This record gives sequence, C-alpha cells and structure tokens, in this order.
Amino acid sequence: MVVGIYGYGNLGRGVEAALYGAKDAEVFGIFTRRDPSTVRSVYNTKVFAADDVLKYKDDIDVLIICGGSATDLPGMTPALAENFNVIDSFDTHAKISEHFSNVDNKAKAGGKVAVISVGWDPGMFSLARIYAESILPNGKDNTFWGRGVSQGHSDAIRRIDGVIDARQYTVPIDETLNKVRNGDMSDFTARQKHLRECYVVAAEGADKARIENEIKTMPNYFADYETVVNFITAEEMKEKHSALPHGGTVIRNGFTGKNGENYHTIEYSLKLDSNPEFTGSVLVAFARAAVRMNKNGDSGCKTAFDIPPALLSPLSAEELRKHLL
Amino acid sequence: MVVGIYGYGNLGRGVEAALYGAKDAEVFGIFTRRDPSTVRSVYNTKVFAADDVLKYKDDIDVLIICGGSATDLPGMTPALAENFNVIDSFDTHAKISEHFSNVDNKAKAGGKVAVISVGWDPGMFSLARIYAESILPNGKDNTFWGRGVSQGHSDAIRRIDGVIDARQYTVPIDETLNKVRNGDMSDFTARQKHLRECYVVAAEGADKARIENEIKTMPNYFADYETVVNFITAEEMKEKHSALPHGGTVIRNGFTGKNGENYHTIEYSLKLDSNPEFTGSVLVAFARAAVRMNKNGDSGCKTAFDIPPALLSPLSAEELRKHLL
Repeated sequence: MVVGIYGYGNLGRGVEAALYGAKDAEVFGIFTRRDPSTVRSVYNTKVFAADDVLKYKDDIDVLIICGGSATDLPGMTPALAENFNVIDSFDTHAKISEHFSNVDNKAKAGGKVAVISVGWDPGMFSLARIYAESILPNGKDNTFWGRGVSQGHSDAIRRIDGVIDARQYTVPIDETLNKVRNGDMSDFTARQKHLRECYVVAAEGADKARIENEIKTMPNYFADYETVVNFITAEEMKEKHSALPHGGTVIRNGFTGKNGENYHTIEYSLKLDSNPEFTGSVLVAFARAAVRMNKNGDSGCKTAFDIPPALLSPLSAEELRKHLL
Repeated sequence: MVVGIYGYGNLGRGVEAALYGAKDAEVFGIFTRRDPSTVRSVYNTKVFAADDVLKYKDDIDVLIICGGSATDLPGMTPALAENFNVIDSFDTHAKISEHFSNVDNKAKAGGKVAVISVGWDPGMFSLARIYAESILPNGKDNTFWGRGVSQGHSDAIRRIDGVIDARQYTVPIDETLNKVRNGDMSDFTARQKHLRECYVVAAEGADKARIENEIKTMPNYFADYETVVNFITAEEMKEKHSALPHGGTVIRNGFTGKNGENYHTIEYSLKLDSNPEFTGSVLVAFARAAVRMNKNGDSGCKTAFDIPPALLSPLSAEELRKHLL
C-alpha cells in the first residue's frame, strides 16, 4: 500500500517510523501545513504542501491524518475522507458520534473508507473492552492509565502564569490496581485509581507556592486527584523527561455459573517506551485494513469495532490460520 | 437468538450457563447422543436426541457444538454446517486447515455461517496474537498457559497401568514469565516456560515408582518438562482437585524507531475459575456473530480473525461507539 502522512508532529513521526518498519508499506510523502522546505523528515521522506494533497489523489492508497483532536481532526478528516481512504486518532470521547457522522457522509459520498479513533485508547483498549464485555456480560470493567506522560495535563500546567515548561505523569495506584486484578468489583474514585505527578520549570522569581496551588486545585484536570508537584530546572526537564512513555491496563472481572459462583479476570495491558510510535503503529495496521475494505467495495466511516482482525495483518488468511490461530 | 447446545459434557454445561447469563439468548434445547431421558440439565433445559436435530432446523438460529476435537468435531461440524449456523472449539492446531476446508464446503453449500476454533486458545489468545503482531511486526510472541488443569495431560496419566485418577496442572514458570514481561526476547525452552504438576490416585498395591517414572518419561506430554508427581487419595482428589481452573498469558515484545530503540510490551492474560464456563461464554459471543453474519447474507467457514468485534456484542453500533470506544 502507498501511504501519505498528513501532519508531521510527534504522531506523524511515529507513523513514519511504523511505515518504515512494515514490509508492505510504501511511504508516498509527508503533507504539512508549514512551509515544506522547513520540514526535515527523520527518514528523508519527501515533503509536500498540505494544500497540494488533492493532486496526488490517484497515487495514494490511504492517508494517515496526524492532527490533534481539539482543533485539527474535526475539520481535516471529513474534508479529506471524500477523496482518500483515511485514518485518524480522534480521541475526544464526547464528540465521537458527531465526528463519525460527519466523516461517514463524506466517505460514503466519495466511495472511500475512513477509520476514526484508532490508537490505544480509543483503539486497542476499546477492543479489549468490547471483547471482554461481550464474553463476560455480567461483570465490571476498569481502565488504568500510565505510568505515562499525559499531553493534555502537561499543556494545562504550561498555561499557568509563571510556568515555562511542564510534564505530567499519570500514575496508576498499585494498591487499587492489585485489588481489581484480584477480582474486586467495587466502585473506585478517581483519587483511588490514579495519582498525578508533575514536573514544572518555573520562571525566575515566579511564586512557586501559587503555581503549585493553581495546579492542585485545577478543576477536571487535578482537583479530584492526589497531585504531586516537583519544581525542576530546564536542564533536568530535558535530560530526564524528554521521552513520551505511556501504557495502561484494561481489566474486566466477570462471573458465570448458575449462582454466579465462578470468577474470571481478563486483562489487557500495554507498556510503551514511545506513545507516538506505538500509536503510529496501530494507525498503520488499520490503514492496511482500510485499503483492503475499500478494494472489496466497502465505503463509509468505521471504528476498530467494525474491522475483522485478519485485515490488519499482512499475512494471508491461510497463513494466519496456520501460524497465529 | 435461539440457540441449540449439541453435546452436554463439561463444555455443554459451560455453554448453557453462558446462554442463561446472556440477555439476548433463548435456549432451544440440548441435543445428546445419550438416551435423552438419562440427561439432566442444570437449568432444566429440554433434552433431545442428537439424531432428531434436523427436525428443528427452522427453529434454531445457531447450534453450538460441544464435542471433543480428537474424534467428535471433525465429523460433527461439517455434518451440521450445511443445515445450521454452527460454532465449534476445534483445537487440534495441526488439523485446522483441513477442518476449515471441510466445514467451509458444507457451510457454503447450505448458505450457513460456521465459526470454528473458538474458545480462549485457539480463540481469544489467537486474537491477542494477531492484533499484537499486526501492530508490532518487529518483535516476538510468547504464550504461557496456566496455572490450570490440562485435560489432555490428565487423560494421558489416567491411561497408565495402576492409575485410578489423575489431574495435571500446567504451571508457568514465574522467573521466565517475568523476564518476558520485562522485554526479554530470548528463545526459551519448554522446560524454562512451564512446569507440570501431577496429582495421582494409584490403585492399591500399584508400583508408585514405576508410575512416576512412566509419567516423567512420557514423550511429548512430560519428557521435555520438569514434572512433579504427587500421590494422593481419592478423597483428596475429590476435595481439592474437582474444579477446572485455567488461564494464561500472551505477551508480545516489539520495537519501533529508526534504530529499533523504543520497546513496547503488549500483554493479554486470563485467570479463569472455570475453563468450560469461560470457553462456553466465548462460544456464545461468537454464536451471536454467526447469526448476524448469516442474516447479512454471508456464508462459509470463519475463524475469530474474520469477525468484526462489533458483531460479538448485543449492543448497537451507536451504543458501542458511545460507551466502549
């Protein structure tokens, strides 16, 4: 498959790495809204202006859209879905229905396949949830995130006056995680499940006590959690907190039997050195599926739920039955 | 969906429990090769003679075939697939291709959908493998089974002269499991991955040293493993080893990045109080999918790889996107 990368930030670079790691992918190029001459690809991939993308409509099997969910994807994905098979990682849960329907209309009009909300959550964690709940309808799910960098929470801290840089790690609380692993189906509060660990570079002379208080009391982001704030230097930030690790765990506890006497635990977990490279790898696997579905005459918007797993693998159906079943 | 249970051993009872736990399933009846008047259902489900099953062709949406892979399923599934949507748990890896093609011919001839090799391995573990390998093509899989009762190994011990009863637990070796969990991609031997723990009731006066030696040197089953043999009484067997717990873990370690510098670990694990009730629950979810695929005009043999996860859930596509994505 010939693939275009639309957007070249952290995620775009993650997709690029995944494409060069796949045996059946050919990278057509990167499309950027910046001046293409200023963008340097890690792999020396050709860089084009985003505005020119339609010119290459017939050369590209699928376009992986690497934009942000807040402002980029709601416009980008529908705009491109009429002319290209597309993949995105839209992750604003509350707006998925609206995004789905906008993309679906355009993809159907153009006879293309669009796969939205792909990555690890939504994405692989969603798959863990749907399989587990379908198998064990009587039970309870719990998702734990981390230890890993939350971009949204880091950005929220950076917006505070006097903050130069910030990194927020979401940390699952082991005691609760182990309870759930051992079958506990209680309701746990946000505070019982996750801790928020912040590293902050403050401007010289800034009031650190005020910054710490603003972080800890910030509604939605921090107020409901135990939050730890560490002030560090810019050098320490660069040295120790430049990577973007992440991960997490989806656990479903359920029971079966005439009197609900047998307990079962299904756990799916991820430990990732690089969130964007892993997310990029998921996007590439679903890009493969989109191309195949479209070749089979399918069109419209899909999520991970709608895609037979065989379509994600470069192996043939026979090879899959032989080696992976 | 109206479901028939074909065969009523441990697995048949597990399927029955799962069907009564599902909100959208109606149990039509149990079909048995024994005299129906001698079979007592745990839930007072109606019992029919297996020979009469064709009479109820139009009353049943899907038949879940609960037979053994060695002698039952190779004949049963193709024989029933022409007239019913069917599900089986065929698990003889080496013969899956042959079974697939036999079932496929019949299901296509009858315009029905058959789903074979469903359960947790093959089944959910196969899904864990295909998703993980598709996302991280550069890496390595490891599957650990247990701690749980292996029926095949227990049966093998029971065939030894002087053995009245036996139970064999497959036990993953924690040291190796933890190495793999922490990213070790070495090749491990059978002996490094699993221990075999046996509980044996010997006949009075039987030569225990000989029995122990026959177990430990049995090719394929035990010779390649560290095997522990414990002789116990029939009472202790009944009291402590009547349950059929099982479980296991599929781990894929893979790497991404220009120099393969970022490591990722995907782990899927199961901890099951009752192997047959969990397997039965998986079969019921795939039965739901088979009925829907057939209603959509599809026919032929499928595996878990061919089925979009959305079809396993009783929820609508909109509900799934809202609640599980």
